Amino acid sequence: MSGEYVENVRLNGEGTAVVVLDQTLLPNETVLLELSEAEELFEAIAMLRVRGAPAIGIFAAFALYVHMRRKAVEYSDYESFTAEAMAFSSYLCSARPTAVNLARQLKRMEMLIVELAGTPAQDIPDAMRDEALAIQQEDIDMCRAISEHGLSLIRDGSGILTHCNAGPLATSKYGTGLGAILLAHERGMRLRVFCDETRPLLQGARLTVYELMNAGVDCTLICDNMASIVMSEGKIDAVFVGCDRVARNGDAANKIGTSGVAILAKHYDVPFYVFCPSSTIDPDCETGADIVIEQRPPQEIARMFFEKPVAPEGVKCYNPAFDVTDSSLITAIITENGIFRAPYCF
Amino acid sequence: MSGEYVENVRLNGEGTAVVVLDQTLLPNETVLLELSEAEELFEAIAMLRVRGAPAIGIFAAFALYVHMRRKAVEYSDYESFTAEAMAFSSYLCSARPTAVNLARQLKRMEMLIVELAGTPAQDIPDAMRDEALAIQQEDIDMCRAISEHGLSLIRDGSGILTHCNAGPLATSKYGTGLGAILLAHERGMRLRVFCDETRPLLQGARLTVYELMNAGVDCTLICDNMASIVMSEGKIDAVFVGCDRVARNGDAANKIGTSGVAILAKHYDVPFYVFCPSSTIDPDCETGADIVIEQRPPQEIARMFFEKPVAPEGVKCYNPAFDVTDSSLITAIITENGIFRAPYCF
Repeated sequence: MSGEYVENVRLNGEGTAVVVLDQTLLPNETVLLELSEAEELFEAIAMLRVRGAPAIGIFAAFALYVHMRRKAVEYSDYESFTAEAMAFSSYLCSARPTAVNLARQLKRMEMLIVELAGTPAQDIPDAMRDEALAIQQEDIDMCRAISEHGLSLIRDGSGILTHCNAGPLATSKYGTGLGAILLAHERGMRLRVFCDETRPLLQGARLTVYELMNAGVDCTLICDNMASIVMSEGKIDAVFVGCDRVARNGDAANKIGTSGVAILAKHYDVPFYVFCPSSTIDPDCETGADIVIEQRPPQEIARMFFEKPVAPEGVKCYNPAFDVTDSSLITAIITENGIFRAPYCF
Repeated sequence: MSGEYVENVRLNGEGTAVVVLDQTLLPNETVLLELSEAEELFEAIAMLRVRGAPAIGIFAAFALYVHMRRKAVEYSDYESFTAEAMAFSSYLCSARPTAVNLARQLKRMEMLIVELAGTPAQDIPDAMRDEALAIQQEDIDMCRAISEHGLSLIRDGSGILTHCNAGPLATSKYGTGLGAILLAHERGMRLRVFCDETRPLLQGARLTVYELMNAGVDCTLICDNMASIVMSEGKIDAVFVGCDRVARNGDAANKIGTSGVAILAKHYDVPFYVFCPSSTIDPDCETGADIVIEQRPPQEIARMFFEKPVAPEGVKCYNPAFDVTDSSLITAIITENGIFRAPYCF
């Protein structure tokens, strides 16, 4: 409609640099960085200037292309070109060693170069650019498919509660959990979105609200503990969340607090929907009990973001990054392949 | 055992000043103020250096005594003494016009002076000091009675979840919601307490954790949205909260987020207990639907306490200060008169 999508990662016009929205400065500053030097491409991943699994993968594919385009003159034969590409790919990958999507998309770019064996080195960069753009387009298409399925769950005037961030900043264009909301808005539906701030890292306040305000969607920020009252007041017709990992029985791990929102939704008889790419479903994971929860540092609760410490020095904190929502609390799981309802047998 | 109680309000040794712990500086600085000037006594109430309904009432009674003791020479006849006392009482009361306890205890002090009609002015301050000390002692006795009843709900090794602050800082010595925990600890029980930080004003982090750490109770700070995971992990045997107002059917208004914790407790089959003086039960309030919820400024969510704004400028926030917990979710309500269980007919 009137708004605009947040564009987090793209090539500049000449294809000589990656343009990235620096997410570490949000929501106070909207700064676009134009990166082409090896070290600054690495640093953008390592310092979380670009974050969100799909977005990191797309960025890395562009980064590898930009680097090799600059080096194509210097490494003019196929063998030296390939050696440099593999070395730079490994370097980028080491910026966040546990990010599965980063490794996966870099591997895809490496495979392309292998397949082009015998091609003159100066012709390879164009093929790399096309492959990186294809990776981005596939993510856009997947997000759009998820969002189109999700659209059937929204009516004009719906009130929707979100938790954490599963929007364009982490993916491309639409996002997963936020995708249906943005698509519905694009098609003229009037929605009222309530965003949990999502302590301790406040992704709801900092990122989701930023994305929705940019797109022109009516949104209201609440503290996590206000989800109960907004549901009790009839303001919420559905809860939309993203997801980090889904077990074969439909148990879903997502940002800490998600399971609590699901329990409230059940209590108030509000449908609770989980949005994710089908790649999020882990066939090796039978139930949520198999999912190990990452514990994070106490400073995130008592210190970070605050002007002064908000609890006494030496306070003991418990800071799990995720929780598991029991599949019995999930009304449906929406992937690019459709809407799945209980009993879940992935 | 080894710990100490937070003493929030007391007279100094000579009875010439009120000693108050400045709650605006907690938890970063523990500063005791010794106040005797009219303006600084007023300011301590107005600026929330002393807060919590019972604590404000006790402070005001001490303040009126301290002021009149200083003025007893100047206003040496009963009539002028009384006129000055009434004027200063009104002045103190205007510092927080909606605080019911402040008005109630000042009225009690005024009644004492009226009853002493004919007494030489120089003898009245001693009676005022005794009355103020009696007000404080009655609050200590009431908190102790609530806590003794609550003690029967705790076992050695219990894990207890708290929300917001209902401890000694707001009352005297024990507190209401925190009283049974402190008393149990005093008697040698080993408890593990989990404290919701309680956004947006963080009373759980700033005050409850401070009180428990001072008393030497094992406590762990969590974000509000972590209540679900700690319950799911079996860490919580009971939830203890205070309360601002109870309807005749047992519906209870308390700090925002309380109703959500109660719903989680029901889901995980954890008992949910509400602690309050019997004066909190409002005979004019039939159900929770009659309770008007105070809305507070958006800055408390998006700006206050933070180094920089955590949401985009112009963000819309919804910031209700309280919510109502349905009586069907409350396992018992504990007052100084005993433990009450559903169906509630106050």
